[in-house]
Amino acid sequence: MNSSKQTASTSFKAPDSSSLQLNDQGRLRHFLTTENLSKDILTEIMDVAESFSSVADQAVKKVPVLRGKTIVNLFFEDSTRTRTTFELAAKRLSADVINLNIATSATSKGESILDTIRNLEAMHADMFVVRHGDSGAAHFIARHVAPHVSVINAGDGRHAHPTQAMLDMFSIRREKKEFKGLKVAIIGDILHSRVARSQIHALNTLGVQEVRVIAPSTLLPSDTKSLGVQVHGDLRSGLDGVDVIIMLRLQRERMGGALLPSEHEYFECFGLTAEKLAYAKPDVTVMHPGPINRGVEMDADVADGKHSIILQQVTNGIAIRMAVMTLALGANRASDSS
Amino acid sequence: MNSSKQTASTSFKAPDSSSLQLNDQGRLRHFLTTENLSKDILTEIMDVAESFSSVADQAVKKVPVLRGKTIVNLFFEDSTRTRTTFELAAKRLSADVINLNIATSATSKGESILDTIRNLEAMHADMFVVRHGDSGAAHFIARHVAPHVSVINAGDGRHAHPTQAMLDMFSIRREKKEFKGLKVAIIGDILHSRVARSQIHALNTLGVQEVRVIAPSTLLPSDTKSLGVQVHGDLRSGLDGVDVIIMLRLQRERMGGALLPSEHEYFECFGLTAEKLAYAKPDVTVMHPGPINRGVEMDADVADGKHSIILQQVTNGIAIRMAVMTLALGANRASDSS
Amino acid sequence: MNSSKQTASTSFKAPDSSSLQLNDQGRLRHFLTTENLSKDILTEIMDVAESFSSVADQAVKKVPVLRGKTIVNLFFEDSTRTRTTFELAAKRLSADVINLNIATSATSKGESILDTIRNLEAMHADMFVVRHGDSGAAHFIARHVAPHVSVINAGDGRHAHPTQAMLDMFSIRREKKEFKGLKVAIIGDILHSRVARSQIHALNTLGVQEVRVIAPSTLLPSDTKSLGVQVHGDLRSGLDGVDVIIMLRLQRERMGGALLPSEHEYFECFGLTAEKLAYAKPDVTVMHPGPINRGVEMDADVADGKHSIILQQVTNGIAIRMAVMTLALGANRASDSS
Repeated sequence: MNSSKQTASTSFKAPDSSSLQLNDQGRLRHFLTTENLSKDILTEIMDVAESFSSVADQAVKKVPVLRGKTIVNLFFEDSTRTRTTFELAAKRLSADVINLNIATSATSKGESILDTIRNLEAMHADMFVVRHGDSGAAHFIARHVAPHVSVINAGDGRHAHPTQAMLDMFSIRREKKEFKGLKVAIIGDILHSRVARSQIHALNTLGVQEVRVIAPSTLLPSDTKSLGVQVHGDLRSGLDGVDVIIMLRLQRERMGGALLPSEHEYFECFGLTAEKLAYAKPDVTVMHPGPINRGVEMDADVADGKHSIILQQVTNGIAIRMAVMTLALGANRASDSS
Repeated sequence: MNSSKQTASTSFKAPDSSSLQLNDQGRLRHFLTTENLSKDILTEIMDVAESFSSVADQAVKKVPVLRGKTIVNLFFEDSTRTRTTFELAAKRLSADVINLNIATSATSKGESILDTIRNLEAMHADMFVVRHGDSGAAHFIARHVAPHVSVINAGDGRHAHPTQAMLDMFSIRREKKEFKGLKVAIIGDILHSRVARSQIHALNTLGVQEVRVIAPSTLLPSDTKSLGVQVHGDLRSGLDGVDVIIMLRLQRERMGGALLPSEHEYFECFGLTAEKLAYAKPDVTVMHPGPINRGVEMDADVADGKHSIILQQVTNGIAIRMAVMTLALGANRASDSS
Repeated sequence: MNSSKQTASTSFKAPDSSSLQLNDQGRLRHFLTTENLSKDILTEIMDVAESFSSVADQAVKKVPVLRGKTIVNLFFEDSTRTRTTFELAAKRLSADVINLNIATSATSKGESILDTIRNLEAMHADMFVVRHGDSGAAHFIARHVAPHVSVINAGDGRHAHPTQAMLDMFSIRREKKEFKGLKVAIIGDILHSRVARSQIHALNTLGVQEVRVIAPSTLLPSDTKSLGVQVHGDLRSGLDGVDVIIMLRLQRERMGGALLPSEHEYFECFGLTAEKLAYAKPDVTVMHPGPINRGVEMDADVADGKHSIILQQVTNGIAIRMAVMTLALGANRASDSS
């Protein structure tokens, strides 16, 4: 019935220009993908996030940075968790937030995406946070949006989920101080993961020593090697000596039965247990974007254990979203006054 | 299944008293219909909207006019687009907004509309923005509401949609400076349009030279002539020499199959094209409330062309809603202190 | 279909420790039940509510008490009415509010309640307002929540609905000045009512002379007598000389057909009419939590008559929720600094 949503359609052109994300002065105007963004830009995002991290510890967890700005959560695909993080980040910046669940509204009256965008622009929306089941949707909107509007990609099909990737980078930096020399393993369903691609680009740009992906061959995209990673089919060899383990969610709802024999069998081969964790470095950091399927992707012991920073990732996600929103709207202002 | 919602029921008494909208000092307290409101009142709404138009251009798009006020969007009929414009207008006035989608809530526990109203009043709601599938619903609520509460009609059945009409008047005034001497044509499904009635009343009150309606006879209400309009069954003769064209949405979901042969045939006769537009004045203004069905009501060329002010209408809609909310709550305060 | 929601499951441990609600200094940190809370605590809640009652009469109905705090409405069971009162209370305290309707979101991806809680804590939520179909759910969450977070029970299964009970106590105090000497009758479906238990505990703690429950034996829980009440099967004898009548909602959707013969027959025996009201004291106060089923629980005459304070209860409900939120978050701060 809603399988059409699962299958990434090809109705949008493949994303191309990385320059789309930057304004004339080379500042971040849209945040669509980590791909082709410079180390300086990614570092600036983390630096601003660091400055916002302290906001959450204040008695009044609010700064007036985006007061009077209108941020529209434009969700063509439902995701309460992601929407909530953006809504919280926007409210802590004092912005006004409008939640639009497009699956259930205007487009059912036959309105096109572009007409929806044009209308919201005419209402003086300043930013669209876009979630869409199709790869390239956020790029498509960014390419057609008015000059005063910024677009943040909150996940598009199998393509990218750059704020998730950046909160992971930020979390790694807070743990390991620097990226140089790190060995990072990404484990799981690389094929269906919009996060994995965004992570691989960011890790390589930030200069880690080695990115490994560990997955059954049926869950690897055909272009894996061109992404600049080492591929491991065996968990033990893949974990050998790594500093950071990034688990992916097993997106059961996205997979047909053909790709995986059973959850039990997956856990046997690729599930993270204390025993397998011993192959990594003693101070290895374990990450997962949530929600966790305990006993499928990893043991509860590992998820809740001393190496896990899964909940810190959530906390860092608010700061990263605050940073990206602030930078993108600031770049727009800078661009206006030029 | 939900056909009962489509068919305008007669469960509410026909709206009568225009004085219901004004307080003791003759100020706008509720905004239910443009009918029987004076030229002064309509002009004041546009003047206040003009003053709010600049708010959207400020860095901080917010004024503290309604800070601490509670505005309840009481939507018995779903309309994300209309609700969003009222929500944005209220937030830019610094009011608190509660969205209630009644179709899915309290009334399912058997609560009557009046009990819902009484409860929200007891929670110190200051304003109800009411959308309802039945004609007269907003009047019914206004007639029974507590003295401190204002009611704004956001569309009731086939009857009225006065803020949409007033944003159209405001848009015309911004384009043409004055109403005197204007010839205005309204094209489309007059029968099912709550906007058309509100527009016709406002245009006549504001003193345009001529209001024409252009529609197939099956889409005209039986009382059309009493509304003070000229009826045209032919688009070319109807457009001859007009200054303003107001297109209506073809509300496909409201029509049975019997009234219209096909969308294609409708477009042949009543769809607006560049060729037909040539019959109007050279500086004709083209308006449409959105969402547009391109290729049904008008060509994409016309919708996106130089005569179209469709997106300015959306912008003006925020200012008009801010104006109506401010005036209505101001009238209530004035009334209290008398 | 959704009968699983109706039947209170036993998936949570029975609530036990009353000390769970208080912090080290004996201040209210969570508000889960009126049971075992001292007269001082209940009185303090009403005193703070009294101070907030005037806020609703100000032109700007807002105080900055909880500015920058994040309050999450965590509704595992839909209730627009209850959610709206908490949302309004939070906004009048200047808090940021996030509404999560869990029935339709994260848990459908297989996330456990505890993972949901941990994630929201990591986003620096300060308070959870919890509604759940299962008895003990709010206790369960309070037992596992982080030290900086407060939990308010907004109704859990058949167990408790303490803010509703306290708004009733507050309403009685505003009418009768003191509890001493009062005879209070609770009429209706005691068995399925989460409110009744909370009311009985509070009334006894506050020192009324007598609490009576009036219900058909099929709608009485087996432990009624241990609650410290007198049981009446006859409305007339039960009402004899009472000062306050608290009607319960006949929760038709919660009852199987076996417990009640028919609504008509129920009204004949237990429906409140002017004639039956005459058995009570002349200045008797009539209360009902709404929404009323007129002609089932009581005559419209009584519901809208001079003894009824049903709408004042709604008004008082906002003040009580503001008070409980303020006290609980204040206790957390006090606890932090100790």
